[in-house]
Amino acid sequence: MPITHTDRKKKTGLPPGSLIFVGSKKTTPATVTLFDYDEKTFSEQEIRDVAECIPFIKKNSVTWINVDGVHDAALIEKIGAAFDIHPLELEDIMNSEQRPKVEEYESCFFMVVKMLSYDTAKRSIRIEQVSMVIMETCVITFQQCAGDVFGPIRERIRTAKGRIRKKKSDYLAYCLLDAIIDNYFIILEKIGERIEAVEDRVMLRPSEQERNEIHRVKRETLFMRKSVWPLREALNGLMRLDNGLVMPDNIPYFRDIYDHTIQVIDTVETIRDISAGLLDLYLSGVSNRMNEIMKVLTMIATIFIPITFIAGVYGMNFRYMPELGSRWGYPLIWVTFITVAGIMIAYFKRKKWF
Amino acid sequence: MPITHTDRKKKTGLPPGSLIFVGSKKTTPATVTLFDYDEKTFSEQEIRDVAECIPFIKKNSVTWINVDGVHDAALIEKIGAAFDIHPLELEDIMNSEQRPKVEEYESCFFMVVKMLSYDTAKRSIRIEQVSMVIMETCVITFQQCAGDVFGPIRERIRTAKGRIRKKKSDYLAYCLLDAIIDNYFIILEKIGERIEAVEDRVMLRPSEQERNEIHRVKRETLFMRKSVWPLREALNGLMRLDNGLVMPDNIPYFRDIYDHTIQVIDTVETIRDISAGLLDLYLSGVSNRMNEIMKVLTMIATIFIPITFIAGVYGMNFRYMPELGSRWGYPLIWVTFITVAGIMIAYFKRKKWF
Amino acid sequence: MPITHTDRKKKTGLPPGSLIFVGSKKTTPATVTLFDYDEKTFSEQEIRDVAECIPFIKKNSVTWINVDGVHDAALIEKIGAAFDIHPLELEDIMNSEQRPKVEEYESCFFMVVKMLSYDTAKRSIRIEQVSMVIMETCVITFQQCAGDVFGPIRERIRTAKGRIRKKKSDYLAYCLLDAIIDNYFIILEKIGERIEAVEDRVMLRPSEQERNEIHRVKRETLFMRKSVWPLREALNGLMRLDNGLVMPDNIPYFRDIYDHTIQVIDTVETIRDISAGLLDLYLSGVSNRMNEIMKVLTMIATIFIPITFIAGVYGMNFRYMPELGSRWGYPLIWVTFITVAGIMIAYFKRKKWF
Amino acid sequence: MPITHTDRKKKTGLPPGSLIFVGSKKTTPATVTLFDYDEKTFSEQEIRDVAECIPFIKKNSVTWINVDGVHDAALIEKIGAAFDIHPLELEDIMNSEQRPKVEEYESCFFMVVKMLSYDTAKRSIRIEQVSMVIMETCVITFQQCAGDVFGPIRERIRTAKGRIRKKKSDYLAYCLLDAIIDNYFIILEKIGERIEAVEDRVMLRPSEQERNEIHRVKRETLFMRKSVWPLREALNGLMRLDNGLVMPDNIPYFRDIYDHTIQVIDTVETIRDISAGLLDLYLSGVSNRMNEIMKVLTMIATIFIPITFIAGVYGMNFRYMPELGSRWGYPLIWVTFITVAGIMIAYFKRKKWF
Amino acid sequence: MPITHTDRKKKTGLPPGSLIFVGSKKTTPATVTLFDYDEKTFSEQEIRDVAECIPFIKKNSVTWINVDGVHDAALIEKIGAAFDIHPLELEDIMNSEQRPKVEEYESCFFMVVKMLSYDTAKRSIRIEQVSMVIMETCVITFQQCAGDVFGPIRERIRTAKGRIRKKKSDYLAYCLLDAIIDNYFIILEKIGERIEAVEDRVMLRPSEQERNEIHRVKRETLFMRKSVWPLREALNGLMRLDNGLVMPDNIPYFRDIYDHTIQVIDTVETIRDISAGLLDLYLSGVSNRMNEIMKVLTMIATIFIPITFIAGVYGMNFRYMPELGSRWGYPLIWVTFITVAGIMIAYFKRKKWF
Repeated sequence: MPITHTDRKKKTGLPPGSLIFVGSKKTTPATVTLFDYDEKTFSEQEIRDVAECIPFIKKNSVTWINVDGVHDAALIEKIGAAFDIHPLELEDIMNSEQRPKVEEYESCFFMVVKMLSYDTAKRSIRIEQVSMVIMETCVITFQQCAGDVFGPIRERIRTAKGRIRKKKSDYLAYCLLDAIIDNYFIILEKIGERIEAVEDRVMLRPSEQERNEIHRVKRETLFMRKSVWPLREALNGLMRLDNGLVMPDNIPYFRDIYDHTIQVIDTVETIRDISAGLLDLYLSGVSNRMNEIMKVLTMIATIFIPITFIAGVYGMNFRYMPELGSRWGYPLIWVTFITVAGIMIAYFKRKKWF
Repeated sequence: MPITHTDRKKKTGLPPGSLIFVGSKKTTPATVTLFDYDEKTFSEQEIRDVAECIPFIKKNSVTWINVDGVHDAALIEKIGAAFDIHPLELEDIMNSEQRPKVEEYESCFFMVVKMLSYDTAKRSIRIEQVSMVIMETCVITFQQCAGDVFGPIRERIRTAKGRIRKKKSDYLAYCLLDAIIDNYFIILEKIGERIEAVEDRVMLRPSEQERNEIHRVKRETLFMRKSVWPLREALNGLMRLDNGLVMPDNIPYFRDIYDHTIQVIDTVETIRDISAGLLDLYLSGVSNRMNEIMKVLTMIATIFIPITFIAGVYGMNFRYMPELGSRWGYPLIWVTFITVAGIMIAYFKRKKWF
Repeated sequence: MPITHTDRKKKTGLPPGSLIFVGSKKTTPATVTLFDYDEKTFSEQEIRDVAECIPFIKKNSVTWINVDGVHDAALIEKIGAAFDIHPLELEDIMNSEQRPKVEEYESCFFMVVKMLSYDTAKRSIRIEQVSMVIMETCVITFQQCAGDVFGPIRERIRTAKGRIRKKKSDYLAYCLLDAIIDNYFIILEKIGERIEAVEDRVMLRPSEQERNEIHRVKRETLFMRKSVWPLREALNGLMRLDNGLVMPDNIPYFRDIYDHTIQVIDTVETIRDISAGLLDLYLSGVSNRMNEIMKVLTMIATIFIPITFIAGVYGMNFRYMPELGSRWGYPLIWVTFITVAGIMIAYFKRKKWF
Repeated sequence: MPITHTDRKKKTGLPPGSLIFVGSKKTTPATVTLFDYDEKTFSEQEIRDVAECIPFIKKNSVTWINVDGVHDAALIEKIGAAFDIHPLELEDIMNSEQRPKVEEYESCFFMVVKMLSYDTAKRSIRIEQVSMVIMETCVITFQQCAGDVFGPIRERIRTAKGRIRKKKSDYLAYCLLDAIIDNYFIILEKIGERIEAVEDRVMLRPSEQERNEIHRVKRETLFMRKSVWPLREALNGLMRLDNGLVMPDNIPYFRDIYDHTIQVIDTVETIRDISAGLLDLYLSGVSNRMNEIMKVLTMIATIFIPITFIAGVYGMNFRYMPELGSRWGYPLIWVTFITVAGIMIAYFKRKKWF
Repeated sequence: MPITHTDRKKKTGLPPGSLIFVGSKKTTPATVTLFDYDEKTFSEQEIRDVAECIPFIKKNSVTWINVDGVHDAALIEKIGAAFDIHPLELEDIMNSEQRPKVEEYESCFFMVVKMLSYDTAKRSIRIEQVSMVIMETCVITFQQCAGDVFGPIRERIRTAKGRIRKKKSDYLAYCLLDAIIDNYFIILEKIGERIEAVEDRVMLRPSEQERNEIHRVKRETLFMRKSVWPLREALNGLMRLDNGLVMPDNIPYFRDIYDHTIQVIDTVETIRDISAGLLDLYLSGVSNRMNEIMKVLTMIATIFIPITFIAGVYGMNFRYMPELGSRWGYPLIWVTFITVAGIMIAYFKRKKWF
C-alpha cells in the first residue's frame, strides 16, 4: 500500500469535476453489466452503449448497473450524463483515494466504500474503491477492477433465493454492502492467524523476521482502519437520514451491517493492541538475549582472567622467585587455580546466574 | 482466546439471516428448559418439542425458556418460528462473535451479553455468548453451553426467595444480567491476584516467565474489555428507551447493574495500567541486571588486565633486563600488583560501584 | 491497596439488596452519633437504639446521624427500615468497592464518596468509603471506621461558628463533602513531596529504590484517580438536578467543591505526567551508567590488550629472535608500550570519552 | 520551521488592532492585482492606488483583489479603510502566526488558511499564510509572498473555462480554497515518498541518518497538522453558517473541500503512525546490531580465553613440571586447545548463535 | 514550580470563606492604586484607605482598582466588604492555587487567570495568579506581587491612546486579559529557543545535560498547560454568557483573545510533541554511542585475543617444541600474526563496522 498515489498531482489547479483517474493504472477495458428484476421478471445483459440502460430505468423494477473499471473517463462521463450524476460525484468515482462516505444529492445517494482483498502471494491487503449511486429504482456500482465479491448476490438474483427479488433498491444496496463488509472478516482472520503465529514464535525466540512481520501487520491494520472507521460514520449517517432511502422494515438490516462494521473496528483495534504488545515482547526478548550473551562472556572472563594472571606471574623470569624452586609449587598452583575458579562459580551460583 | 473464528468465512455471500454457527463446535445436543411462574404458581420442565412452550406464553405468568447450546440450526429456527423472532436475531444468536448490544424489535427486545468464566487449569478466561429475547411475559435465553451461573436464580424462583416471583419479565431479565455481571468480579479478582503476585516477583527478580505472565494478563484484559465496554453502552441504551420494557420501580435495579458494569470497566482499566507499569518495571529490572553483569565483568577485567600486562613484561626473554637480576625484583613486583589493584578498587569505591 | 476485595465473591448469585460486607474486616463495634441543631438549639448524643432518632427527624431542625463502621448488617438493616432507605442503597453502603456517585431516590439523595488518608508508616494512601443519605431535614453518613476528618465540622456546629447553624441539610452535606475533598490536598502534598524528592535523586544517581518509589507513586495516583474522576461527574450531576436539594444561594458552595475536585484531578494528572517523565529519566540514567561502565572497560582493555600482546611476543621461546639479544631491546620495548598506550589515549581524547 | 517568530514580542502591550508584521521579513514591495468579471465581461489590472478599486466594487460583477506581501502596514491600512475591514482583521492579516479560522464580521467573512509548499532544496515544508476577506461581490486575498498556486484560477477566469465566470464570489472563494488544499496532497506525496524510502533502508540497515530523517518527517507533519486540523473546523463552521455566504447549489463544492481536508488529516495521521513505527523499527535494529557485536566479541573471547590460560600455565617457570619434559606434552596440548575450542563452538551452535 | 503549596494544609477543616493565604509568602506590604476615567476626565491615585474608592464607584466613569499583594487578609476583607464581594471569591483571591475560571455572581463576574513570567536567571517560568472582579462600572484586579505587565495599559489610559478611554469596563477587562495572554507568547518564544538549541545539540552529541534540559522543558510546559487549558474554557464560557457583561461590539475583541489562547495551547502542545521526539532522539543517541564503544572494544579484542594466544603458545616451556628451534620460526610467527589480524580486519570491513 503506497501512502499516496502520484496521479493526484495532475489534478492540482484543474476546475472541480475534472475527470482524472487517480489510482493504479489499468489497461483492461471497462465493462458494464445490467441486472433488472422484480418479484416475477428478471433480465441480465452486458451493456455496450450506455443508452441501452435508459428503458430499464424508466420501469418500476429494480435495475442494478455494475461498472468494472473506472479509469475510462469518457465512459464515466457518458454514464454521468445519462443518469444525471453530479460532476463532483463523477470526480470522486474516478479518484480511488476517497475516504468512505455517504452523501445526499438531490436525485440520489452517493456512497463510497473500500473493498479489501487479501493477496496471499504478497501477504498483504489490496484495497479497492467501490462507489455506489443509489436512486429510487436503480443502483449503479463502480468497481476499480472486476472482482467476484458480488458473485453470490448475482446468483441470488438469478435464482430468486432469499428476499432479494421481493425488495427494492435499498435492499440491493444493503446486500452489496453486506457482501463487502463480510469480506473484511476474512481479511481479519488472515491477519489474526499471522499475528498469532508470530506470537508463538516471539515468545520462544525473537528474530528480526518476526519484528518485520509485526511491523507489516501494524502497517496493514493502519490502512484497514483508515477504510473502516469512516465507514462506521457513513453508515450511521445513512440510517439517520429521514429521506425515504431506507424503508422502515429494512432498518434492522442496515443496523446489522453497522454492527458488523463496529465488530470489524473492534477486532482491528484488538489486533493493533496485540501487535503493540508483541513488539514490547520482542524488544524485551532481545534484551534478554543480550543479557544471556553478556552473562556467558562475563562468566568465562571472570573465571579465567584471575587465574591467567597467576599463571602469568609464575611465567616471569626473575632470578629470585622462591616458589619456582619448590617441589610442591606446581601442584599448589593448580590448587590455587581450582580454588579461585571455584569461588567465582560459587559467586555466580549465589547470584543465580545459572 | 483466538482473535477470530474461522467459521465466519463460511457465511460470506450467504443471504442475511442464514443460520450458520460461528464458534467452537459442540457435540452435546442442545437442551431446552422452561420455568413458568407468578406470585402463586410455579412449574419447571424440560422441553422436547418447542410447541410445548406455546400454552405457557399465552398465560399472564412469567415464562423463562433457557436454551443450552446454539449450534443446532434446526432448533433455533423452530424457536424463531414459534416466538416470531426476526431472522437477523436468530443469525446473531448463532454467531458467537457478536458484540454485546441491545436492540429493539417490534415484538421484543434482543440483548447479547458475554458470560466470562475462569478456566483455572489453563489460567485463562473463557468467553461465552448469552443472547436474551425479552418479551412482555417471556424471556428466552440462549447459552453456548450449559453453565451454572443461572443456578441461584433458578433456586430463587423455586423457593420464591427475594422479590423475583412478585415481579415481571423485566425483573427476571435484570436478575439474569446481574448474575452474569456479578461473575465478572470473580474473574477480576483472579486476574488481580495474578497481577499482584507478578508485581512482587518482578520487584524482586524479573524473569521471562513474569514477562509472559504480564503479556497474558494484558491480552486477557483486552478481551475482557471488548466484552464489557459495549455492555455499558447497551445498558445505557436500555434505560433510555421509553418503551414499557423496564418498569419505573425497577429502574434502580438496572441503574445498579449499570454501576457494576462501570466498576468492572474501571477495574479492567486499572489492571491495564498496572500491567503497563509492571512491564516498565520488568524492562528496567532487565536493564539493571545487565548493568550488574557488566559491572562485575568490568571490575574483574579492569583490576587484572593491567597487572597481567606487568606479569607479561617480566615474562619477556630479553637478555638485558636489569630488574630480573635484582634481589628485590620479585617482592617489589608484588607490591606493584597490589598497589595497582588497590588503586582500581579505590576508583570503583569512589564511583560507588559497590 | 489490593485491586479487588475477595469478599465480592460471596455476593455472587444472591438476590439484589443482600447485605454482605465487602472490604477489610473490622472487629470494633459500629457506633452511631446524632447531632441535631437549628439556629438556636443544639443537641448531641450517642445512639444505642435506632428508634431514639425518630423524634429528631420529625422536628424541623437539621439532624446529622453519623454511623462509624458499616460491617454490622443488622444495624444497617435497622437504619434502613427506620429511615425508609432503598435496599440497593443499603447494599451499596456495605460494599466498600462502590465508585463515587450521586443517585436520586424518591425520598432522598444517595451519595458515595471516598475518603483518603495518608498512612505515614506504610507511606501509602488508605481509601475509605463514606456514604451519605441526604433527606430534607436529615443527613445520615456512614463511615467505614471512625476518623477525625469531620471533627472540625462537629466543633463548628457546637460553637455555632460560621454559617452552618443558620443553614439547612444541603449546607451540612456541603460541609461534609468540603472536609473530605480538602483532605485530598493533604494527600497530594505528601505525594508531591515524595515525587520531588525522587526527582532530585534520580537526576543525580538513579537506583532501583527510586524506580520502585516511582512505581508506587504511579500506582497510588491510579487509585486516587479512580476515587476522584467519578466524583467530578457525581458533583456535576448534583448541581444539575433541579430538585430542591441544593438551595439557590448554596449553589456557589457546591460550585466551589466542584472546582476543588477539578483542581485535585489536575494535580493528580500532573503527578502522573511527572512520574512518567521521571521513569524516562531513570531509564536514561541507567543507560548512561551502562555507557560509563562500558567506557571504563573499553578504555582499560583497549590500552592494555595490544601491549600485553607485545609483551607476550617477547616472552616466546624461539631460539632465533634477534631483538632479545640486543642491548636496547628492553628499553625500546618500553618506548613501544608507552607509544601504543599514548596513541590509544589520544584516540579516546579525540572521541571525547573523557 | 521555527516554533515561534520573535517579532511577536514587539506587539506585547500595544493596543489591539496595532499593525505590526509578524513573520519572516520581506524586502520586495507588495503588489496588488485586480480581476473583475461576470459571465460576459472581464478585466484584469495591476493596482497602484487602492482608490482605483472602488468603482469595481460598486458594480454587480465579481471582483477579486489579490495582495502579494503583507509586511507593508501602510498599504494594509489603506485597504482596510477603503473596504471597511475591522482593525482586528487587519492585525490578523499582518500576523503570519494565525491559526486557520473563519470569522463572521458584520460586512464580510474573514478566513485565514495556510498555504504549504515544498522546498525541494532544503527538503522541508514552507508555510505561508493566506487571508481572505469575502464580501458579497468581492474577494480580497492577502498572500505573504507571490506564488503561482492561484495561476490556474486566473487562467480559468481569463478563458472562461469551467463554471467560474457564471458563479458569484462564494464560488471564487471555493476555487481559491480548493487550489490551496489540492496543493497539500503534493506535499503529502513528497513526505510519503521520503518516509517509504526510509522504511526500506531502516529494515535493511539502520543508521543515524535514517533516524534524523524520521525525526524531521515527524516534526514536519507536526506543523502540517497544526495547519490542517483547525482548517477542518473552520470549513465545518463555514458550512453551518446560515448567512447567505454559501449559495445552496454550491454546498456540494464546499463539502468536497471539507472532504479533501479530512483526507489530508487522515494521511497526516497515517504518516505520523508510520513514522512512530519506523522509530521503533530503528531502535530495535540498533539493539539487534548491538547483539551482533556482543556475540562476535563473546565468541572470540570465550574460545580463546580458556586456551590462552592453558598456554599461560605451561609458560610458568616452575622447576618441577613433569608435563614439560614429556615427549607428547606439546602435541597433547594442541589436542587440548582444539578440544576446548571445539566444545565452545558446539555450545554456541546449540544456542543457535550462528 | 512546586507541585502543591504546603499552606493548603492549614485550610483543612476551616469553614468556607476563611481567608488564609496559600502561596509563597510575601513580606512587602500590599499596595492599592486607582484609575478612574471616561472619555474626557481621568484621575489616578494611590489608595491608603479602601473607603476612598467609594465615591469613584458611584460615578458613571470606569474605575480600575489594582491591588498588588494578596497575602494581607485584613485588606482583602475590607475590600470585600466595601464592594460586596462573596466570601468564596475572597477565599479564591487569597489562594494562589486556583485554576483559571470565570464565575458569575449576582453583582459581578469573577475571573481567575495565571500570569506567567520568565525568570532568566533560573531559566524557569514563574506563575502568578491574577484575580479580576468585573462590575458594571468597575474592575478590581488582584496581583500576587507588583509586576509591569499592566504598565502599557496604564500608559494608554493616561495618554488616551487607542479606544480604551471611549469604552466601558468590559473593554478594560479585555485589555488586561490581552496583556496577560500576549505575555504568554514571550514565554513560548523563550521555551521555543531553548528547545531548538537542545535539538541541535542532541542531533550532534547527546549528553545528560541535554536530557535534563528536555526534562525541565517538559515539566514547564506541563505547568503552562495547566494554566492555559482551563483559560480557554473560561473564555469560552465568558462569551457564551448572555448577561450584558460583554457588549456586542466588543465580542470580536474577546474572540480575538480566545483565538490567542488556542494559539498558545497549540504551541504548548507542539513543544510537548517536539520534546517527546527529542527524548527519543536522545535515547537513540545514547544507544548509538554504546554501539560505538562496544564496536571499538570488540574490534581491538577480536584482533588481539587470537594472536596473544599464539604468542602464549610459543611462550610455553615444553622441552620438545620443534618450531622453537627452527630458523624461520620467528619470522613465520609474525606472518601468522599479521594474517590473523588481517582476516579479522577484513571481516569487520565486510560487516561495515568502519
